[in-house]
This record gives sequence, C-alpha cells and structure tokens, in this order.
Amino acid sequence: MAEQFDVVDIIRTKRDGGELSTEQINWVIDAYTRGVVGDEQMAALNMAIFIRDMNRREIVDWTQAMIASGDTMDFSTLSKPTTDKHSTGGVGDKVTLPLGPLVSSYGVAVPQLSGRGLGHTGGTLDKLESIPGWQADVPTDRLMEILEDSGAVVAAAGAGLAPADKKIYALRDITATVDCIPLIASSIMSKKIAEGTSALVLDVKVGSGAFMKDLDQARALARTMVDLGNDAGVRTRALLTDMNTPLGRKIGNALEVEESLEVLAGGGPADLVEITCELAREMLELAGVHDPDVEEALKDGRAMDSWRKMIRAQGGDPDAPLPVAAHQEVVTADRDGVLSELDALALGVGSWRLGAGRARKEDPVQATAGIEIHAEIGQEVKKGEKLLTLHTDTPDRFERALESIRPGIVIGDAPAAARTIILDRIV
Amino acid sequence: MAEQFDVVDIIRTKRDGGELSTEQINWVIDAYTRGVVGDEQMAALNMAIFIRDMNRREIVDWTQAMIASGDTMDFSTLSKPTTDKHSTGGVGDKVTLPLGPLVSSYGVAVPQLSGRGLGHTGGTLDKLESIPGWQADVPTDRLMEILEDSGAVVAAAGAGLAPADKKIYALRDITATVDCIPLIASSIMSKKIAEGTSALVLDVKVGSGAFMKDLDQARALARTMVDLGNDAGVRTRALLTDMNTPLGRKIGNALEVEESLEVLAGGGPADLVEITCELAREMLELAGVHDPDVEEALKDGRAMDSWRKMIRAQGGDPDAPLPVAAHQEVVTADRDGVLSELDALALGVGSWRLGAGRARKEDPVQATAGIEIHAEIGQEVKKGEKLLTLHTDTPDRFERALESIRPGIVIGDAPAAARTIILDRIV
Repeated sequence: MAEQFDVVDIIRTKRDGGELSTEQINWVIDAYTRGVVGDEQMAALNMAIFIRDMNRREIVDWTQAMIASGDTMDFSTLSKPTTDKHSTGGVGDKVTLPLGPLVSSYGVAVPQLSGRGLGHTGGTLDKLESIPGWQADVPTDRLMEILEDSGAVVAAAGAGLAPADKKIYALRDITATVDCIPLIASSIMSKKIAEGTSALVLDVKVGSGAFMKDLDQARALARTMVDLGNDAGVRTRALLTDMNTPLGRKIGNALEVEESLEVLAGGGPADLVEITCELAREMLELAGVHDPDVEEALKDGRAMDSWRKMIRAQGGDPDAPLPVAAHQEVVTADRDGVLSELDALALGVGSWRLGAGRARKEDPVQATAGIEIHAEIGQEVKKGEKLLTLHTDTPDRFERALESIRPGIVIGDAPAAARTIILDRIV
Repeated sequence: MAEQFDVVDIIRTKRDGGELSTEQINWVIDAYTRGVVGDEQMAALNMAIFIRDMNRREIVDWTQAMIASGDTMDFSTLSKPTTDKHSTGGVGDKVTLPLGPLVSSYGVAVPQLSGRGLGHTGGTLDKLESIPGWQADVPTDRLMEILEDSGAVVAAAGAGLAPADKKIYALRDITATVDCIPLIASSIMSKKIAEGTSALVLDVKVGSGAFMKDLDQARALARTMVDLGNDAGVRTRALLTDMNTPLGRKIGNALEVEESLEVLAGGGPADLVEITCELAREMLELAGVHDPDVEEALKDGRAMDSWRKMIRAQGGDPDAPLPVAAHQEVVTADRDGVLSELDALALGVGSWRLGAGRARKEDPVQATAGIEIHAEIGQEVKKGEKLLTLHTDTPDRFERALESIRPGIVIGDAPAAARTIILDRIV
C-alpha cells in the first residue's frame, strides 16, 4: 500500500527548522510503530527535533500520536477519584513508596504504573522487588480490584501503553537525544495520559543527579508537561525539587525500602518527609481532599496500614526481613571541616556501580547493593569519621564505585548554605 | 574487547556544536565499518553534522578515516601520468564518455572508477552498458594493462574502496542528510583519493538539476574539495558549470552514448563540446601537457580512435548499433514565443520516470529510455513545433513523465539571456 507521506520530506522539514503538520506527526509516529519508518530515520528526525525544537502545537500532536499508537486505560468505573505522581528521577528518590499508601489512606486511588530503571537513578519496581514475594505484574482486572479495595498499586506498565514511546525512548538512549524538553515531556505525558489518571502531580528534579541541571530548564520542562496534561483533561501540577544531593540517607533497592518504612513509621530524614508530605497534599487537593494533616497520617499508622495492604495485594510479605548485602565498606572523612557537598550524580553512579542499577534492559540488579549516608550537608566532621557505608554482594565492585564517589564528597572550612528542597511550584 | 570511545559522547559533542577530535573521528568511522556503531547512531551523528557543520580539520580527518576504512589503489607503476575527472552529477551529463578518450589520446592515463547512478542524474556505467558486450567490472591487473595500453578506463569502483563511505552514503539517502558540504566533499574525495589518481579535475554542477542550487554554495563545496585533494597530495582543480538546463540535447543511456559519438566525431552540441574541451585542457595541464589543441583532436579522429580502443578493451563492440526504444512520444510547443526555460530537474525526473534511472540499487534501467531535445534556449518557436521526443520501452510511463516535464518547459515573449556554461574556476 502506498504511504501517505515521505519520511525523508518530514525529516528535511524539521532539519531546516520548519514546523511539522499534525498529519505528518500522526503518520510518522504510526509508520515508525508499524516498522515502515526505520530506526535510522527516526534517529535522524529525533536529532533534528533536539536541535531545532518543536512548538507547543507540535508537542501536543507528538504526545497524542504516541498515545494513539497503543491502548489506553480507563479508571472512571472506580468509586473513587484517581491521582498519580511522576518523578523525572533522582538519586535516592524512593518517594513513590511511602506516598502511594499515604494518599490512598484518604480513600483516593493511586495507580502508579512504572517502567524498569535504566541508568544511575534506579527504578521503583526494582526497589519493591527486594521485598520477598512481591510481584510487579498485575493484570488489569486485578489492578481495578486492588484500587477499589486498598487504593494504591505500583505495577509494571503494560506493553500496550504508548508502544511508540517505548521504541523511541530506547532509540534516544543510544543516539544522544535524551535530554530534550519536547521529547522528555511527550514521553512522560503520553504514558501518563494513556494510563487514564484524572489528576497528576509531577516531581521535576533539578541538579547534578537529575536530567535537568538548571532551574530554568526544569521550569520550562514542568510548564510544558503541566500544559500537556491539562490540555488532555488531566488536572496536572508540578513541584521542582532539589537533586544536587541525594534524597534521604539511603540509596539502593532494599535500602530505599528500609528508609521508606522509617517514613511510614513516622520517622525518616527531614528532606524525604518534606517532599513526601508536600506531594501528598498536592495530590489530595487535586482529588478533592482539602487541608489533610498528612504528617499525622504518617505518625498514627494509617499510612503504614495502607502500605501493608498494598504489599500484600501483590503477593509481598511486609513482615519478611529485607535482604542485606554480603559485603560492606566504610568511607571516612579525609580531613576536619564542614561537609559542604555530597554530589548526587557521584553517589548515584557509585550505587549503580555497586550493583543497584542496570546498564542494559536485560541486566539483573542486586537487591542489596547501595549506599548509606551517615552525615548531613553543613555538618562538622572530623578526619576519620564515618561518612558512608557502601553495600554490595560483589566486593570487586568497590574500587570502581569509589572512583565515582570520592570526588563527590567535599569537606570545606566555611559553613554550608542551608538546603532548600522545594524550589518552585508550577500550576 | 572494550572500545576506546563512547559513541553517545561523540554524537553529543557534535549535537552541541563542538569539534570532534581526530581520534574520535577515526574511531567512529572504523567502528561503524565494523558494525559496532549502529545505523541509527550514525544517522543521528550525520544529522548533527548536517546542522552543526564540521571545520576544515574535521573534514580532512573524516575523509582520511573513510579512506583508511578500505583499500587504496596505486598507479605509480604506470609509465604515464594519471588524471581523473569527477562530476557532482547533472542531467544529460555524459562528459566522461568523450573526455576520457580525448585526454588519453595525449598519452595520459584516465582511470575513471564510477558508482551506479541513484536518482534522476543516472550513472556513467548505465550509459556504457547500453553498448553491446561492454563490461563494467575490470579486475585490478587488467585495469593496469588497459591504462598502460589504451589509457582510458571507465569501470565499476571495487567494493574495497572506502567501504565506510558506501555505508554512510546509503544511510544519508534515506535520512535527509545528502546535501551537506562536509558530507558530500568527504564522500567524493575519499573515493577519489583512495583511487590513487595523481591529478583530479572536479566538475561542480550548479542549478536546478544539481545538488547545489546556488553559486555560493557550489563555490564553497568546490573550495572544500580542492583543498582536500591538494592536502592529500592530489593536484586538484574545479570548474563550476551550469545545470539549470540539461547538458547537450540527449538524456538517457543509449541516447547519451549516441551524443558522445557525435562529439567524438567532431560535431555535437556547443555546450557539451565547450565543457568537454575545457575539462580536457585542465586535466592535460595537470598532467604536464600544455596548450593542447583538443578541438583538433576531436576533429581529426584521434579521440575517436581512443574511444574505440577503450570500448573494445572492456568487451564492447564500437560498431554495433545502439538499442532504440520501442515507443516514442513527441512534445510540442503550446504557444508561439521564445523558449526561455527547459528545466534540468523537470527533464531529469522525466527521463528517470521513462525508465532511464533507478529508484533502488537493485532496480534495472532501460538502455533506450530518455529524452531528445529539438530546440535551444532563446530560440523562437511556433505553436505545434516539436520540442522534445520521449523514448521508452514501457509506454505506460509517458503520463507520469509528462507530469514532470511539462511544467519545466517555459515559452515567453522576451528574448532569453545568453547562457553561460562555465561559471567559475577554483584552483
């Protein structure tokens, strides 16, 4: 059958800084999903988009075309409102774990469909899989049952949602076209809109450990995604949060579950509690629950009860001990002074090298690998004082991990500036 | 084995407008030839190069890396100087056919290695293959023998010369990265330098029927190629020649051989004779033959003798009649006036649609298909007067061919400006 458009014309148009029509975008995304447009052609088009940009209309069309490439879900038959959260990814970002149960304890459904982690930031599914018995794959009818009953689900996104995005994402990863606002925004929002949530709060990370290194870029990405969501009928907001330093004090899979349990028990590090509570308030407000005392819901055990239901609903044992790494190594301060930097990227790559993340989709991850942080930015430390504990089952990884971690630890003389966690809010 | 570089880093550098190092270029071309770098990655890199450009050092390195990807030839054992010509391709451009014999009649070797034609401009090998018995494939030892003896060869370039260029060229064709000076210049010059000629004259076509639509662009391409050649020890010059109107009066395969024979017999259209003689003088000068009377060599039969030897050396019968198309259709003037335009691209695409060219590498071409032109730009014509004769073996192609040809014929009222054939000379 003759095709409606010539892909070389479409690439040439964007290459020369032109605007793609709705029909061109619909055709090229569909033809790429069908395999009529090749990977080398989509790679050239992505690079042209990266350098030449897309305007708002093109981004909306690109997102809608990716949604149309596959199935969509529908939660409108549930008796309760749905609301979801998406983070652009950061080091130590385990917020999804305490947040889902906390929000669902107010009678709101939180259907969090997640992909596998690639790169240094790890994946939520990998973290939960360190809990004995827990299963990421949930058939749609069972998903609806759990949402109606316990209210919170973290599950693997089905292959049928936005398949064009899956193909394009894999291609961007190997062709240096990842950190491009139109492509990031359409990738995230096509999946979230296809999932059918009625409200969405975005956590856009800013800093060394995030995609977005500076605040203006992050603001532009947040603005684009909030507009895309609202245009598609999903009530959407975004918080911009700091990712120059890891979030919380534990990085890894089982280690992040452990720290999430501290938060759900009413404790946990201040930065992690602050972001979790702020995101919970935003999500609940979008779901019609006004002025909830979410700190209290963490302290009085309601959120923990929700967590235990959520884990059990997917076959996990919330009382089983978490796995512990076979080998530990301590990193100490090499001088007296004030801890002025714990670089998120350095620690993220370090944790990844210890075995917590994967280089390729098919690689396994270690449940136990990761980093514990024993000191805080701004704290006075003495030479020889314990700063980090590294965990792994394969001790030959310590050396390469330390090569990344050591330069990320900076001890200075002057007092460090106070850290602001929540940098902006886009509505 | 661990690779020395990360291709994603290399793509990112060029994407952001940076300069690639010699080592990065050597590695990426070699890794692409070995299949370690994928088509989608080279496509993204080519698009980044297209938009961000390469500086002179990068183009030299890129060209040298493509030469190093395969074999090189060596004509230094011949008893005579070698000189070659390369045209960037135009409609009706059969200059190679009379030019090789003309130059070789002065005792100079002309080893013209050629690829198959893709697109509307056709290929020299396709033209010669319309001569009964003529073979494009010549083993290297036989090639040397013919050069030593008759002096002129037109043969298929071996697969071993610049294989990286072959892979990249095929990719550029489907990813809208063809008309880019650094990529065109390095593609042409890597092949010509690998062929081992000691002198080279470039015919850079300018106008509607050529890659380069405007003179400044063509000048920049010519400058880049002349510098690349001289830097690599090949004495190189370029002529810029007009390609808004087809060259000569015949377009096609057998039809262009027919017109070449007219030139070799001392006749032929003025524009074709002018370019052939000018290129011959440049080539001969680079080979140390000064002030040759090349017009006389065409008139007195020396060039024709050379032609007959050249055709016979590759199995062809110079006395066999050329094939003639089974079907002809005449195109007439639709009004009285002055013929002011015969657009090269319109007639080139028309000839291609009649069957003279191929859409894909594996397609056959018709030896007989093409166009004869019966009028000249600036000539007064009467309504109903014969302007063109279209030739094909498959008459269902006339309609689509005419769709391209008709709008390319413009008859006006004012006298047309005189046509300049040779626009500039770059040394």
